[in-house]
Amino acid sequence: MDIAAYMQEVGRNARNASRQIAIADSGQKNSALLAMADALDNAREMLIAANRKDLKNGEEKGLDAALLDRLSVTDAGIDKMIEGLKQVAGLADPVGEISDLKYRPTGIQVGMMRVPLGVIGIIYESRPNVTVEAASLCLKSGNAAVLRGGSEAIHSNQAIAACVKQGLKDAGLDEAAVQIIETTDREAVGQMITMPEYVDVIVPRGGKGLIERISRDARVPVIKHLDGICHVYIDDDADADKALRVAVNAKTQRYGTCNTMETLLIAESRAAELLPALAKAYQDKGVELRGCEKTAAIITDVIAATEDDWQTEYLAPILSIKVVEDMQAAIVHINTYSSQHTESIITENYTKSREFLRAVDSSSVMVNASTRFADGFEYGLGAEIGISTDKLHARGPVGLNGLTSQKYIVLGDGHIRE
Amino acid sequence: MDIAAYMQEVGRNARNASRQIAIADSGQKNSALLAMADALDNAREMLIAANRKDLKNGEEKGLDAALLDRLSVTDAGIDKMIEGLKQVAGLADPVGEISDLKYRPTGIQVGMMRVPLGVIGIIYESRPNVTVEAASLCLKSGNAAVLRGGSEAIHSNQAIAACVKQGLKDAGLDEAAVQIIETTDREAVGQMITMPEYVDVIVPRGGKGLIERISRDARVPVIKHLDGICHVYIDDDADADKALRVAVNAKTQRYGTCNTMETLLIAESRAAELLPALAKAYQDKGVELRGCEKTAAIITDVIAATEDDWQTEYLAPILSIKVVEDMQAAIVHINTYSSQHTESIITENYTKSREFLRAVDSSSVMVNASTRFADGFEYGLGAEIGISTDKLHARGPVGLNGLTSQKYIVLGDGHIRE
Repeated sequence: MDIAAYMQEVGRNARNASRQIAIADSGQKNSALLAMADALDNAREMLIAANRKDLKNGEEKGLDAALLDRLSVTDAGIDKMIEGLKQVAGLADPVGEISDLKYRPTGIQVGMMRVPLGVIGIIYESRPNVTVEAASLCLKSGNAAVLRGGSEAIHSNQAIAACVKQGLKDAGLDEAAVQIIETTDREAVGQMITMPEYVDVIVPRGGKGLIERISRDARVPVIKHLDGICHVYIDDDADADKALRVAVNAKTQRYGTCNTMETLLIAESRAAELLPALAKAYQDKGVELRGCEKTAAIITDVIAATEDDWQTEYLAPILSIKVVEDMQAAIVHINTYSSQHTESIITENYTKSREFLRAVDSSSVMVNASTRFADGFEYGLGAEIGISTDKLHARGPVGLNGLTSQKYIVLGDGHIRE
Repeated sequence: MDIAAYMQEVGRNARNASRQIAIADSGQKNSALLAMADALDNAREMLIAANRKDLKNGEEKGLDAALLDRLSVTDAGIDKMIEGLKQVAGLADPVGEISDLKYRPTGIQVGMMRVPLGVIGIIYESRPNVTVEAASLCLKSGNAAVLRGGSEAIHSNQAIAACVKQGLKDAGLDEAAVQIIETTDREAVGQMITMPEYVDVIVPRGGKGLIERISRDARVPVIKHLDGICHVYIDDDADADKALRVAVNAKTQRYGTCNTMETLLIAESRAAELLPALAKAYQDKGVELRGCEKTAAIITDVIAATEDDWQTEYLAPILSIKVVEDMQAAIVHINTYSSQHTESIITENYTKSREFLRAVDSSSVMVNASTRFADGFEYGLGAEIGISTDKLHARGPVGLNGLTSQKYIVLGDGHIRE
């Protein structure tokens, strides 16, 4: 197979389809989403059989249990995909929304219209349900999608893709609006991220290694976050109950998510009072604690934290703890070590809450709330395709609006510039 | 001079200053802008003397009259810089603006806060007034600026920079918030566009060659437009007076601007009626006409247009004209040849106006208005640092908001995720 020629063809088809999808009306896009749901429902056996091939290959290749679990497609998993499609169909269509249409002194009216980005390339790893999620969000936001899943999920992804295409066809839309790369050759990714004439933005979903590699080599803009080194800072003026509740939830509600707290900062004035109860709560849940010297002077069973700990996303039941002099020291620590994902202050102090919100340079900044809330569903976006820690374009959880842009519109009545 | 080491130092200083400027209050930023205006007013002789050196060097190097004109700093030019600074001081501060703060079912409040991008690198050519414009817009939007002007304007830019620094100092702000690159070595640009750790976005202002080079080599996001191949389409249902007025204004009000029309499209049904009057108006103003075969069959003194004409930004009194079958053909032509800057339809038809607005994929799309309106001042942005034809981040005229991003803020009362 000539990978370059194949990818050029995929790109051309995607660009053509994107023009149709961009102006498809909301009803037609919703029909396609619901038809995809029907197609998945009718293809359960086929989907599970295809997935069985992937699982068998994966076992033979010696994939670990966690990877095999993420790869697996079950009846319950198909239910979730179907439910997700119906939810996206129920969301408001962002495309064509006109805002801020105002008369100017010259008599023209100037406003903004929300428009699709064009063609979105999604590169992801083992979870086949991403195929449905990504396809549905791109379609609803009026974009064509080029999907490149992991090689270990190729049969599952192709089976899901057949249902997606059936849905597009049933709704009278161009089937090329969602294309799955048919080859597992790595060169296909290299091509996809370097054809700005056909692909407008890349969304990588996967481990840090994948995302770093793509960001480095891409000639197309990338919407990404590398990692989530999130902080909770317990201020001098924190309410003790809220501090305990939030700090425990932020670490222990789930360990493997990017919005999980990795470093707890605590004001020196409250450390002796609060750290023992916090340590007990963490240790009861089996969380390993690594702390600065001042932390170790207050609680037992704490490993000495090194410089590395402040810059590590554990994604595991491990927490680093640092006692800081005051909020300023906390902000300096955060702006130095944070991955600009999510940080939260626990305080009852009005002035400090305002200052923390303003001075912390992260994509989500919170007061008295768990970092675990940093999520498209929790924020009311209806869905998310990922979380961006970049400042350009989308920032924080990226929902349908993050997959669109805006153009200016000008309405006149024969107006000319004098 | 070790350029790499110098640029690293500039970058580090900019990054440090950006943290101070990001949280500086509006009053302090406005004081700095007004103090810059005072400093320029007090330094007129010094500015004109420095500019004289650049003009003398330019003459010796044989720069042409147009370039020397753009390079020149006069008393009236200084008045304009001062006026510009006062205008920017008068604009609302975008930084810290909180929008869409809404309660979610969980009880948390989620909203967005507008924040600076960080450090903005501006690369521009001969006009020294850009130094003041760029510095003022970056400062007001809470960003540090690294400015790299053309080598031919180095003395003028340094003299202006001294006034800018005086203003920052008078207001108690870090003078490194605006830095002018002190060397004319080209390597400095190469460094500046490849240090994402210190520079968050590059705004190139200049010819297409400069912008293409920077876009190709940058490892930092670039806000740019390459060129302005703008279209006016006169529809079957156009009002004849509006068509003449707008089509003449869009081409002839100024020839060298990016929002000037370069190609006129006209519906076949109206060509015989309208083209003769249009041709006369253009030819009276000395505009050279290049047309398709159908155009040449209707009007005289028209050169045969080639494929090249449809993709050329003349920036000169030259216009290409194409007779098209209908609006669909016009949209296809535009989406093929346009640089996605600005397009306008002249029509009285409600349905077609809606369809044109939706289907044309450009950063500004107009109905019955001259493309010349595509401008930050005309759109009410108060000022603009450039026009972006990209879809990610800012699109169309880029004002203060385009130099900012948004972060999510979450306000809770000890809320945790269940």
